[in-house]
Amino acid sequence: METYKISENKFNTDKLQKFESIACQGNGYMGVRNSLEEEYVHTHRNTFINGVFDAPHEEVTELAALPDVTNFELYINSERFDMLTGTVNKYERSLNMKNGESVRRVTRTGENGIKVTYVFSRLASQTHRHIVAERVQIICDSDAQIRVVTGIDGKMTNSGAQHFGPAELRSYSDRRIGLYAKTLQSQVDVGVQSVLKSSEDNKYSVKTDRRGVFSCMQLSVNKGEPVVFEKISAYATSRDLGFSENDSVEEKCKKYLYDAVQLGYDGLLKLSAEAWNNFWETNTITIASDNKFYQKAVNFALYHLHIMANCEDNRLGIGAKALSGEGYKGHSFWDTEIFILPYYIYTEPQTARKLLEYRYSLLEKSREKAKKYGFNGAMYPWEAAWSDDGETCPLSGGMDLETGKSIEIHASEKEVHINADIAYAVWHYYIATGDKDFMEKYGCEMILSIAEFWLSRVEERNGRYEILDVIGPDEYKDGIDNNAYTNYMAYFNFCLAQEIIQNISDEYRKEFEKKIDINGLEICLPQVMDKMYLPEPDENGIIPQFDGFRDLKDVDYSLYKNKEKVGMIFDDYSFEEINKMRVCKQADLVMLFYTLRNQFDNETVKRNFEYYENCTLHDSSLSLCIHSLMASRLNMLDTAFKLFHKCCEVDLGDNTDNSDSGIHSASIGGIWLAVVMGFGGVKAENDALTVEPVLPDGINSYSLPIIYRGSKYRLTVSADEADMERLSGEQQTIILNRNNITGLRNK
Amino acid sequence: METYKISENKFNTDKLQKFESIACQGNGYMGVRNSLEEEYVHTHRNTFINGVFDAPHEEVTELAALPDVTNFELYINSERFDMLTGTVNKYERSLNMKNGESVRRVTRTGENGIKVTYVFSRLASQTHRHIVAERVQIICDSDAQIRVVTGIDGKMTNSGAQHFGPAELRSYSDRRIGLYAKTLQSQVDVGVQSVLKSSEDNKYSVKTDRRGVFSCMQLSVNKGEPVVFEKISAYATSRDLGFSENDSVEEKCKKYLYDAVQLGYDGLLKLSAEAWNNFWETNTITIASDNKFYQKAVNFALYHLHIMANCEDNRLGIGAKALSGEGYKGHSFWDTEIFILPYYIYTEPQTARKLLEYRYSLLEKSREKAKKYGFNGAMYPWEAAWSDDGETCPLSGGMDLETGKSIEIHASEKEVHINADIAYAVWHYYIATGDKDFMEKYGCEMILSIAEFWLSRVEERNGRYEILDVIGPDEYKDGIDNNAYTNYMAYFNFCLAQEIIQNISDEYRKEFEKKIDINGLEICLPQVMDKMYLPEPDENGIIPQFDGFRDLKDVDYSLYKNKEKVGMIFDDYSFEEINKMRVCKQADLVMLFYTLRNQFDNETVKRNFEYYENCTLHDSSLSLCIHSLMASRLNMLDTAFKLFHKCCEVDLGDNTDNSDSGIHSASIGGIWLAVVMGFGGVKAENDALTVEPVLPDGINSYSLPIIYRGSKYRLTVSADEADMERLSGEQQTIILNRNNITGLRNK
Repeated sequence: METYKISENKFNTDKLQKFESIACQGNGYMGVRNSLEEEYVHTHRNTFINGVFDAPHEEVTELAALPDVTNFELYINSERFDMLTGTVNKYERSLNMKNGESVRRVTRTGENGIKVTYVFSRLASQTHRHIVAERVQIICDSDAQIRVVTGIDGKMTNSGAQHFGPAELRSYSDRRIGLYAKTLQSQVDVGVQSVLKSSEDNKYSVKTDRRGVFSCMQLSVNKGEPVVFEKISAYATSRDLGFSENDSVEEKCKKYLYDAVQLGYDGLLKLSAEAWNNFWETNTITIASDNKFYQKAVNFALYHLHIMANCEDNRLGIGAKALSGEGYKGHSFWDTEIFILPYYIYTEPQTARKLLEYRYSLLEKSREKAKKYGFNGAMYPWEAAWSDDGETCPLSGGMDLETGKSIEIHASEKEVHINADIAYAVWHYYIATGDKDFMEKYGCEMILSIAEFWLSRVEERNGRYEILDVIGPDEYKDGIDNNAYTNYMAYFNFCLAQEIIQNISDEYRKEFEKKIDINGLEICLPQVMDKMYLPEPDENGIIPQFDGFRDLKDVDYSLYKNKEKVGMIFDDYSFEEINKMRVCKQADLVMLFYTLRNQFDNETVKRNFEYYENCTLHDSSLSLCIHSLMASRLNMLDTAFKLFHKCCEVDLGDNTDNSDSGIHSASIGGIWLAVVMGFGGVKAENDALTVEPVLPDGINSYSLPIIYRGSKYRLTVSADEADMERLSGEQQTIILNRNNITGLRNK
Repeated sequence: METYKISENKFNTDKLQKFESIACQGNGYMGVRNSLEEEYVHTHRNTFINGVFDAPHEEVTELAALPDVTNFELYINSERFDMLTGTVNKYERSLNMKNGESVRRVTRTGENGIKVTYVFSRLASQTHRHIVAERVQIICDSDAQIRVVTGIDGKMTNSGAQHFGPAELRSYSDRRIGLYAKTLQSQVDVGVQSVLKSSEDNKYSVKTDRRGVFSCMQLSVNKGEPVVFEKISAYATSRDLGFSENDSVEEKCKKYLYDAVQLGYDGLLKLSAEAWNNFWETNTITIASDNKFYQKAVNFALYHLHIMANCEDNRLGIGAKALSGEGYKGHSFWDTEIFILPYYIYTEPQTARKLLEYRYSLLEKSREKAKKYGFNGAMYPWEAAWSDDGETCPLSGGMDLETGKSIEIHASEKEVHINADIAYAVWHYYIATGDKDFMEKYGCEMILSIAEFWLSRVEERNGRYEILDVIGPDEYKDGIDNNAYTNYMAYFNFCLAQEIIQNISDEYRKEFEKKIDINGLEICLPQVMDKMYLPEPDENGIIPQFDGFRDLKDVDYSLYKNKEKVGMIFDDYSFEEINKMRVCKQADLVMLFYTLRNQFDNETVKRNFEYYENCTLHDSSLSLCIHSLMASRLNMLDTAFKLFHKCCEVDLGDNTDNSDSGIHSASIGGIWLAVVMGFGGVKAENDALTVEPVLPDGINSYSLPIIYRGSKYRLTVSADEADMERLSGEQQTIILNRNNITGLRNK
């Protein structure tokens, strides 16, 4: 197994979409699904640009499917190329994550008897982030006529939702073609230009359809002589960073394309591969194992983590499917802060800051949302897109198969833990980076504003402050009271707020008072914190996930757990029925041990982990990684490793269609979590980085990079060694606890 | 060749769309493209309901692609059925125009080794016009598991243009599923319900996606035992005739579906086939020829003419592609009045009246349009959809391949002959039917209103009234002066108006004066008519198509005429260059001889026919039929027959893709014209029906039905006989001239 390659050597149309997602190419600015050049029924061709959101009629905003440049129609003596007809003698395809290039080699004997070898290559440039470059090499075993039709297709929709008005189509004298269109609601100008070249003389023409412009090339080739087509395409939008009123997307495209065409495919590949090489040199995590799948999974995670965020732009979050598919509409959830951000905090802290600045940009809309629901402070959107959009969570979706009616979605109102998650992430970023500047400019205001929200959200009942009618992380439960995760996290938010207020300078206090009732916080925080209800372990040592959880009806978990598909419980029960059953979709109480581990003794954590893992179906991709991480922390290494394996399989397993609508970005962040914070036991505490590595059977050794407070380290762990090597920066306080490494313990 | 069957026995994905169009099923209420059940890349699945128009953002209104019910996913032991994989042992497919049913038989050996025979059947009911019924029979050569997924897919767009807001999805306890959505601009409620049944016990479930709801069935079959799936679907819209505010599309669908499900597929087929049988019994045209292609072509024409108009509804026109495809957006052009209406006038006169009443409903918007351009009276839209929409011709489209910019479309402003065409059609309807009631209620007002327009449109120049800056029927010329067709037809309109005014009763005059300046007409008509410029033959006997036509630059017609594709001249010249070349897209001056034949002597007609046919590329499907008809009238029978053959090939020829976006409804009307008015020489004159049959070589005999002033006749023509038999109604004045039948002449 080549650990840097996502590959397949059997063509299977059922797996087209999964490959498109997991081998998606991109650079943070854009994402290009790895669709084959020729069209198939189950292809889901998509290119997205980070931040180009648009709301279709009466629907929530979503990443708009952009005009496509990846489709090629190829004809050999007028027979159209595809791999379902004729005889495919050879097929192999892979994305090389090492250099970001995808290559497909096909030898096919057509129905016309001509045997042709095709090599298709494609990249999304790391150095020219507006550019997609494609190359097709063709060798025929006899003289033949070749025709190529490829261009810019603006007929793309998001499952039938149209995002662009009429397209302006252009053909230029230098054989560039262009398509320009504006998103319907958000009014973003999008431009695409392409140029197609061939290595041999050709007859060139242009054709158009309702929303597309295409270059057509016809040429003759001699037997055995290769002909190469190169297509370079540039995207530009009026939402691009630095795009000003005087700019035009047409001019921008022209410029981007000019620079790229000078380099050609090979030049672009060289530069892009160098950039990738630099990334891998710095950020490689090695996992030595007899099974190379784990090294591949970690490479896969790093590859996607690197391309899913726009490191230059603080106006953008990370979607639940990143830029790899339509799923979840490109919206940012708590996934970013809790599952993905840790990677950036410890690897690309400057990008982590950008992502939190994006959350800061949502403050105004979050304050509006709080007002709308009758609360104070900032109530963050459960789903976020462009910051002006505010809450983008739909109010209903899908259909309850039992009742036959559409399901109400209460997440925007009730899944309030996201507020505490964001405050937690701000703190996590701060203690790991020491970035005071961020805290002063953004972080403190966020924590205080969210604390204001919680103060208005808690309710005094039974002589204590409770949080009622919420959805916790476990989304199989709607409208529950005192979700332990939510209550503890809100309390933690109060602690952070209190610390800030206690240490705030007069100058900042004055500044913040323009937006935040600091006096109110100062008075109320101690009162509420004093009587805040934080569920304790019951007589069996079990902390109830929420009020009444343990009284819920049992179900046979084996019927729905570890099955081919997730969510199979819905085949038998309606949502309302599941709401009353003692079954969890995903980590909920266990999340609490991940975020606030120090507040619980090991015995409590272990007992609750076992209790809750048992009744958790892992029907969300946010579940396995956290359970693996926690199992590592509990030194339950076999369990940790087994769950890690399953977590790696979320996107890379044999399951055919679960990644069709995009990769699972939280689960990908989760692979990193399970390795670095799980096996590596890396965690920033208030004044030190604790590192408590473990080494499960099945992994011989591993090494991973960590940036802590600006200093770069590499943790190396094997049965013989557990070491933190400082690579650059000043020495920081690192507490390396080797006690759990078997080999070392015996030393 | 079975003359009632559109069939193929070789599966070719390149021909999918053509078959979908030419074998389209429908009933005037709806049109269902004949797409295969399983999906292919080049499938263009579409269902349209007549009158359900919607204007996408910044684009003109169009027939909206409706939620689809024709798609079936079939799995045999989890292998998906399609005809590109596995081995297809047998394939045949046909639409039986005799009973309206399409049937496909496929035997395929799957990659899993199981040999399966499939029989797919489908119909759009003639008696239950809201119903589409489908049946799939499957026989496996070993025991197998079958899974079927089929439902209602609302993700359809018109080439990327979205017409429906979010869909409401429903699943009912009686296994019905439903989808409800509203068009975005026109706010039409559309509902679709389906029910799927199988002949054997099944495991049933429902799944949904963003805009779709699907029934899933799983069952086991034994070797050799057939299993049958029946799916019946009902469409209803808030634009349906008789739909009131208190109605709901959901309830309507339920009712339609209930009635249809009682009948089942077989019952529906029986009733529908009976209705078709009645149609054929009355309306058959027989063409005895050694080549059965002509009989088939005529059957094809009658089939489509019968399903393209909603005979019950006077709010609807006929689109240039009828209800068979997206092309021309479902808009009505002059095609209806000049090419299609004659069929209805002489075959289904009550439908002809409905179609003209539709034109009457456009009067208000036409008056508005006239005002907008500074004219009086009614200036009809060049393209018409729902009558409230007024002019629906886009102002630009496509791209000039030479300049690389989009082409301005001036038809709405300049292609004014449509006004005279409509007045002409009113007169034609009247003289053929004698329907005074229609004239009094609608026809006279239309003719007078259009005459008012012409009076304001003509310009005094050179001591005469000219019509400047128009586009004639020949659309390769834009902005020409004194197009002979336009001038003569406008003059004819004046004559009709004058006759009406001269004979108008005081009562009607008073009524009309509310909307029309009758006095003005009375004064101006004689003045303008007196000095109206009607181009005369020049010294060579050629009437100039427009001012300066004969001075235009020549071109080698052979390069572009009778080629594989039409419009090839655009590969070499820009539109502006073609505008200056002596080349015609289609019949223009020759149109004049078709509409106003009596005004020209035979010698002039012949000379001009030959002159203009020579420089006409027939790049429009409106061209061949009229040329064939005229050649018959000139007794140039070989030419007439050759052109008729080509006209039949417009949709039925081997050309792969020219019907992809729908059948050519004018050309289909043209097949009828070439036979009935060309060969048959049938034409209503002011006070009689003249019938001047010819019999070209290649046709042994023919017979055709004609309704004239309420009486039914059948014209029978062979080398030995030419007879008009009266089948019903009173005897009318028929002038049968047998002189041109060779055999008879010698009798």
